[in-house]
Amino acid sequence: MIIAYAAFEAKGELKRFEYDPDILKPDEVEINVDFCGICHGDINMLDNEWNMTQYPFVPGHEVIGTIAQIGERVRHLSIGQTVGLGWFAGYCNECVHCHSGDHNLCAGAHPTIIGRHGGFADKVRAAANSVIPIPEGTDLESAGPLLCAGITVFNPLIQFDIKPTDKVGVIGIGGLGHLALQFFKAWGCDVTAFTSSDTKKAEVLELGAHHVINSRNQAEIEAAAGKFDLIVSTVDANLNWNAYIGALRPKGRLHFVGIPKEPLDVMVFPLLAGQRSISASPNGSPINIEKMLKFASRHKIKPIIEKYRFDQINEAIERLRSGKARYRIILAK
Amino acid sequence: MIIAYAAFEAKGELKRFEYDPDILKPDEVEINVDFCGICHGDINMLDNEWNMTQYPFVPGHEVIGTIAQIGERVRHLSIGQTVGLGWFAGYCNECVHCHSGDHNLCAGAHPTIIGRHGGFADKVRAAANSVIPIPEGTDLESAGPLLCAGITVFNPLIQFDIKPTDKVGVIGIGGLGHLALQFFKAWGCDVTAFTSSDTKKAEVLELGAHHVINSRNQAEIEAAAGKFDLIVSTVDANLNWNAYIGALRPKGRLHFVGIPKEPLDVMVFPLLAGQRSISASPNGSPINIEKMLKFASRHKIKPIIEKYRFDQINEAIERLRSGKARYRIILAK
Repeated sequence: MIIAYAAFEAKGELKRFEYDPDILKPDEVEINVDFCGICHGDINMLDNEWNMTQYPFVPGHEVIGTIAQIGERVRHLSIGQTVGLGWFAGYCNECVHCHSGDHNLCAGAHPTIIGRHGGFADKVRAAANSVIPIPEGTDLESAGPLLCAGITVFNPLIQFDIKPTDKVGVIGIGGLGHLALQFFKAWGCDVTAFTSSDTKKAEVLELGAHHVINSRNQAEIEAAAGKFDLIVSTVDANLNWNAYIGALRPKGRLHFVGIPKEPLDVMVFPLLAGQRSISASPNGSPINIEKMLKFASRHKIKPIIEKYRFDQINEAIERLRSGKARYRIILAK
Repeated sequence: MIIAYAAFEAKGELKRFEYDPDILKPDEVEINVDFCGICHGDINMLDNEWNMTQYPFVPGHEVIGTIAQIGERVRHLSIGQTVGLGWFAGYCNECVHCHSGDHNLCAGAHPTIIGRHGGFADKVRAAANSVIPIPEGTDLESAGPLLCAGITVFNPLIQFDIKPTDKVGVIGIGGLGHLALQFFKAWGCDVTAFTSSDTKKAEVLELGAHHVINSRNQAEIEAAAGKFDLIVSTVDANLNWNAYIGALRPKGRLHFVGIPKEPLDVMVFPLLAGQRSISASPNGSPINIEKMLKFASRHKIKPIIEKYRFDQINEAIERLRSGKARYRIILAK
C-alpha cells in the first residue's frame, strides 16, 4: 500500500489516503519520496481549475527520493539511487516527438498528477524514462522545484540557442523567476529582472540580475527599447506586451512560460520591422532535465525554500495560496 | 537630369518629373532602368498611408536595369552590368545589424522610395551594396518583383532554417503568395496553399502547392491540426489566427510577411503546449537577395506578370488598385 495525502473534492482539505498501486509494470520504478515541492500546478489541479481533476486527488510533482523498486525491463536505474520526478511521469515513446527527444511535446505524455497519484505520499511510481538521476553535489532538500520550475525556465536557453553574450530579461520574480535569474546569470548572460516589487530589488540583484526594471513603470520599459535578445515571462498577469516587444532587439524573442489569462493583443508591425518572435514552451524533456540538474549542481543553483513536514500539508498549501512564500515550498519527511 | 514619373499630392496622378540627382557619391551607382515592378508598398506611399511621403514622390522599388555610372569607391560592380534594386537603396553600414549581415534590420536603412526618388524613371541611384547582380539565365522582364516580393517570402526559409522535409503553408495567393508557392516547392517542402478563392485552385496547384485549403473554411483548417512546421501569412486581413496556430506542429511557426490591421489576439496556451512561435520579418539582406536570385534562376522561379509601358503608369496603378492583377505588374521601357 502507498500512504498518500489526497483531496476528496475540489479545493478540499488533504487527508491521509491509502491506495494499492498494483503490480509494478516492467518499465516502471517506485520511488521512496524524501522531499516534494508544492507548485502552483498542484493548486490549479486541486481546485479543478482545468476541469480534469479526478478525486481522490494526490498532488505532488517535484519529487526527490530514492529508487525502492525497479521494473524488470529497467536497466539504467538501480535500487537506492537518488532520483527526481517532475511534471511528466511517462510518455508514449512512439511518436515523432518522443523519437526526437522532445518527450515534453508528446501528446500522449502522462502528467504525474493527472489521472494518476502524485508525490505527496511515501512512495510514487513513474515510467523509468521520466525519472532523472540526481547528480552528486545536489542539495537534495531544495532540489524538488528544479524538476518543474527549474526546467521550465532553463529549457528556453537550450531550445533557442541562447548565447552567453546575449542580453536576457525575466518578467516576474517568483517561484520560476528567482530560478531563471540564477540560471541566466550562470549561463553567462547580461540579466535584467522585471519586477513590480521594489522591495525585492536587493534580493533580485543577489540572485543574479545585473539590472532591475519596474515592470509597471512604462517609462523604464520604454527606456530599454531594442535591448533584449530574450525576455522570458513567468507571470499570468496581462501586461503591456507591445512594450516588451519594443524592448527586444531585432531577432529578439518574447517567450512565455507563464500563461496570461487574456489573449496577447500584439501588433504585427513591431514584430516585422525587427524580425522578432513570440513563443512559449512547457517544461522540458528528460535529457534536458538531466543537463539542467548537472548545470545547477556545478553552478550551485538552488531554489530558495520554505520547509514543511508532510503532515503540515494543509498549512503549506495555505502558505502557497497566500502568495507570500519566498520562493518555493518543500514538504519533507 | 533624371526623367521620372512623380505624384505631386497624396493619391495624385503620376506626371513627368525631371530632377537633377547632383554629383554621384563615391559609394553609389546609377542604374539605367529597363523594368520596374509596381508593389503595394508603392501605393501605400503614393496615398501617404504611412504619413511619411514627401511630394513630388517617385515610386518604384523593383528595378531591373544596367549600371550606367559607378562611384569612385565601387569595385564589385561595373558599367553595363545587369543589376536589381529592391526596397532598400542604402544602409548605415555601421551598426551591429549591418556588421552581422542583417542590413534589412538596420534602423538607418534607406528605403528606395522614402526620402528619395525611386525607379519609375529612366535612371535611379543607390548605394552600391544595396544593388544586386542579376545572375545569368534570369528572365529580366519579370525579375523586378523578386527584389521585393520574392525576397520577402524567401527570407523566412533562410532565417528559420526550414528543411526540405518540412511541411509548409502559405496564406493568401497573390503577389507574394504565388512566389512563396514556387520557392517552397523548389525548396523541397510539402506545400499547402490557404486561399479564399476557389477559382484559383488549379493555378495554385500548378504554381507548386501539393494541397489547397480554403482559408475561410474553419472545418478544413481544423482538419489540418498539428500538421505544419511553418505557415507564412501574406495577407493584411484579420483571420482566425488561433486556428492557424492549431494547424502548427509542435515547434511550428506562424510567420507574417503581410501586416494584419488589427492586433493578433492570440492565446498563449496553444503556443505553450506545443512550443510554437509567432514571428514576422521584413524583406531580406543583400546577401540573401543574391542567394534568392541564384536559386530562382536555377529553379526557373519567376513572377507571373502583367506588362505596361512606363507611359501607361496611371493605368497600371489603377489595375493594381483593382485587386485583379495576376499577380504582379511590370513597367517596361
